[in-house]
Amino acid sequence: MPPSDNDHELTPMGDADALQARLAEVQTLLARHRLVEDLVHRQEMPRHDLVESLVHKRHLAELRGKLDKMHPADIATILEALPLPDRLMVWNLVKAERDGEILLEVSDAVRETLIASMAPAELTAAAQTLDADELADLAPDLPREVVQSLFQTLPHEEREQLRAALSYPEGTVGALMDFDMVTVREDVTLEVVFRYLRRFDALPDHTDQLFVVDRNDVLQGVLSLSRLLVSEPETEVTAVMRSDTLRFTPHDPADDAAEAFDRYDLVSAPVVDAEGKLVGRLDVAAVLDYFREESESEQLAQAGLREEEDIFAPVWNSVKNRWAWLAINLVTAFIASRVIGLFEGSIEKLVALAALMPIVAGIGGNSGNQTITMIVRAIALGQLSPDHARRLYRKELGVSLINGLVWGGLLGVLAWALYGSLALGLVMTSAMTLNLLLAATVGVAIPVTLARLGRDPAVGSSVMITAVTDSGGFFIFLGLATLFLL
Amino acid sequence: MPPSDNDHELTPMGDADALQARLAEVQTLLARHRLVEDLVHRQEMPRHDLVESLVHKRHLAELRGKLDKMHPADIATILEALPLPDRLMVWNLVKAERDGEILLEVSDAVRETLIASMAPAELTAAAQTLDADELADLAPDLPREVVQSLFQTLPHEEREQLRAALSYPEGTVGALMDFDMVTVREDVTLEVVFRYLRRFDALPDHTDQLFVVDRNDVLQGVLSLSRLLVSEPETEVTAVMRSDTLRFTPHDPADDAAEAFDRYDLVSAPVVDAEGKLVGRLDVAAVLDYFREESESEQLAQAGLREEEDIFAPVWNSVKNRWAWLAINLVTAFIASRVIGLFEGSIEKLVALAALMPIVAGIGGNSGNQTITMIVRAIALGQLSPDHARRLYRKELGVSLINGLVWGGLLGVLAWALYGSLALGLVMTSAMTLNLLLAATVGVAIPVTLARLGRDPAVGSSVMITAVTDSGGFFIFLGLATLFLL
Repeated sequence: MPPSDNDHELTPMGDADALQARLAEVQTLLARHRLVEDLVHRQEMPRHDLVESLVHKRHLAELRGKLDKMHPADIATILEALPLPDRLMVWNLVKAERDGEILLEVSDAVRETLIASMAPAELTAAAQTLDADELADLAPDLPREVVQSLFQTLPHEEREQLRAALSYPEGTVGALMDFDMVTVREDVTLEVVFRYLRRFDALPDHTDQLFVVDRNDVLQGVLSLSRLLVSEPETEVTAVMRSDTLRFTPHDPADDAAEAFDRYDLVSAPVVDAEGKLVGRLDVAAVLDYFREESESEQLAQAGLREEEDIFAPVWNSVKNRWAWLAINLVTAFIASRVIGLFEGSIEKLVALAALMPIVAGIGGNSGNQTITMIVRAIALGQLSPDHARRLYRKELGVSLINGLVWGGLLGVLAWALYGSLALGLVMTSAMTLNLLLAATVGVAIPVTLARLGRDPAVGSSVMITAVTDSGGFFIFLGLATLFLL
Repeated sequence: MPPSDNDHELTPMGDADALQARLAEVQTLLARHRLVEDLVHRQEMPRHDLVESLVHKRHLAELRGKLDKMHPADIATILEALPLPDRLMVWNLVKAERDGEILLEVSDAVRETLIASMAPAELTAAAQTLDADELADLAPDLPREVVQSLFQTLPHEEREQLRAALSYPEGTVGALMDFDMVTVREDVTLEVVFRYLRRFDALPDHTDQLFVVDRNDVLQGVLSLSRLLVSEPETEVTAVMRSDTLRFTPHDPADDAAEAFDRYDLVSAPVVDAEGKLVGRLDVAAVLDYFREESESEQLAQAGLREEEDIFAPVWNSVKNRWAWLAINLVTAFIASRVIGLFEGSIEKLVALAALMPIVAGIGGNSGNQTITMIVRAIALGQLSPDHARRLYRKELGVSLINGLVWGGLLGVLAWALYGSLALGLVMTSAMTLNLLLAATVGVAIPVTLARLGRDPAVGSSVMITAVTDSGGFFIFLGLATLFLL
């Protein structure tokens, strides 16, 4: 059972200011400590001067005391906000038995730096303080030898749980679930249930319901604590339990389960295998983490970052993290450049084209991204039947037509005024309108096609649409200009 | 108290497929109904033909039966996925007493269409089925007369709660909290608490703890159901309650509270006023909704959409929703175009510049957006002390320098190969590197400045960086070319 929060001071409200204040405290203590170290190091003080050594120790002891009282999530935040040497010094001050829960809380990139600083024996000890489901989260980052020695030291039941948890791929309910189930039988009275619960030191976190199982662990229903508490103790479990409850299997997509938690306001839900046997539990804390990680990695992906970065990691790590995206964009930009290259003769004759063409391409990209965002959303909400796709496409075409005529018209007038050519203005307006219609078409087609192919319509859509509206915009504008102006 | 979910069939797993299946069912029934309507309308059948009228009624009755058994969140999804006439037909089949809870679940845009179809008396009746905190969420969308008549009909306590809930601005704890608190006194035994709870029909959703208050409703601590259940009934509340618990005030930012729920895995938390009096409760379902809405509106904002769109709304609504963003981008694109205009003479002499310049601008924009995303994240995580800002800036400069030399070098070679001019290649490489350094500088400066000004660093950063790297990229590349090549 995870240690309860009772013995940690919770940052009042967990707000950014309070955390900043704590961080500043830690940094002050570290700075004082370093000052003494520096003096000793520069030999301005005899190395073994007793008094100084005491001062030195006092700062570290004070820091250790503060850390002991902090919630693991807060310590994790502080570790993430410290440069590597400071980070490792604080890490060494943290009590060994808390290493495990803190490793679970820090970001992947920072976790790597902490694990790299620990000996295998330390890591094994830290891992042993964790539940099987937590271990499964940590295992991929641990050295192979540590995982092996863990398997050898775990009690049988937990070993099986760990094996099970490790077997479910990321993105499934199995990878998110824990094993903190409290089970009861259906043929006992609530009085018996009360007596049974009193034998616990504490119920697992987020226990809002007990799972009712038969002799073979097959789930019969759930008994909510609320029902338990408002019913008469003489009642039998079977009379107050709910049997038509939502249940998941370990292979269900985590997305669906998370959606159900949000939709039906759940706190916990049972996870059963194909035979209906209770194998785990999903709770709202895991779902909340999942939502936040998903929305974060989506944000990072949208900017072309492969993963979160440790802000104190070497430059090289950041370069690798951002490389792929820049390379892809370089390719699409190069293609667009070659499209312009086709019309160099036209540009030579009418140089105004060079100044105006990026506007056509850019606005097309913006409008296309708006369309894609709407369509991806409609797909995610299950609103996009084939029937509706056509309807939506017509609508997007309508929006593009209006925007093309209005904004394209405005730009046409500007081009006319700037370069004194009505024909150039008309080409500008037509090109804008056509490129916006292209953006709408491709903006609907890309996510719909990706979804039909069973791929995530959100991933990569934005690069693709920009590539199309850039090259397409240049081609349409320069092509029309070549046809009608030269 | 909100109606419990007990009497609704929950979609198995709430997954997209199951919902699609339900939607298809509804649509089939609607289609059959319409067929009959059409036949009647086209006079191919006598209008009062008894048999047909029965068939007609049977379909609607079947649909009504299905709707009655569905969870309000599922009905909301179906309403959102139906075009307006179908949507209103389904809406009319929903039992009147469920209107309120369904209005809470649908998106803002769809809610408008439903409310527009209802008479004031219907709306008042629907609203009366809701709790004060739910009413407060709905009130801004209701006609003024309905809100006024609600205030007159509500019992005193709820009226005060509604007044309070309406007084807190969006984005505060007060706007998210509910009033479903179960309170106990500290000087009673747990046995008394058990007897007290048994008098309830059901505990409010997400009750994981009872609030311990004194005679004046001042919060003394919390008693978790877990503690209650594992302790001996003879114990006094005061012996098992926690008094150092996290508490919020209605004016706390919702962001901070949500962050605390995620950080400390909370299910519910008390909300107190300045005197420590218990005034409300925040629960994890409200927090989860908040997170999802925030991440959604961020996604929409990033694509320049003001709000979610009803996919069946008229084209005109969509145009208005997307207008502002396109206008802003038009202005920045026009400025970039004028920068190019400054160098028309140079482009006339060396037309290759026109083909190469969008690459310099585009890659700068991509790299700048990567930097901004990292910095906004660091700010959100509280990792950006002034000391660290300098450090991060140096790092971003390093990343840009490497990327500029590598990718810029590659493009320089390509330009050299394509146009046979080494000097052009060198200008290309230098311009890329300089524009990436500019992107890094501005990518750090924009969010840091916005944060110092107390504004949300995520809003608008992306447009600004793209504006700078576009205009800047064109200026640097064309300027260098003019200086060194012509």
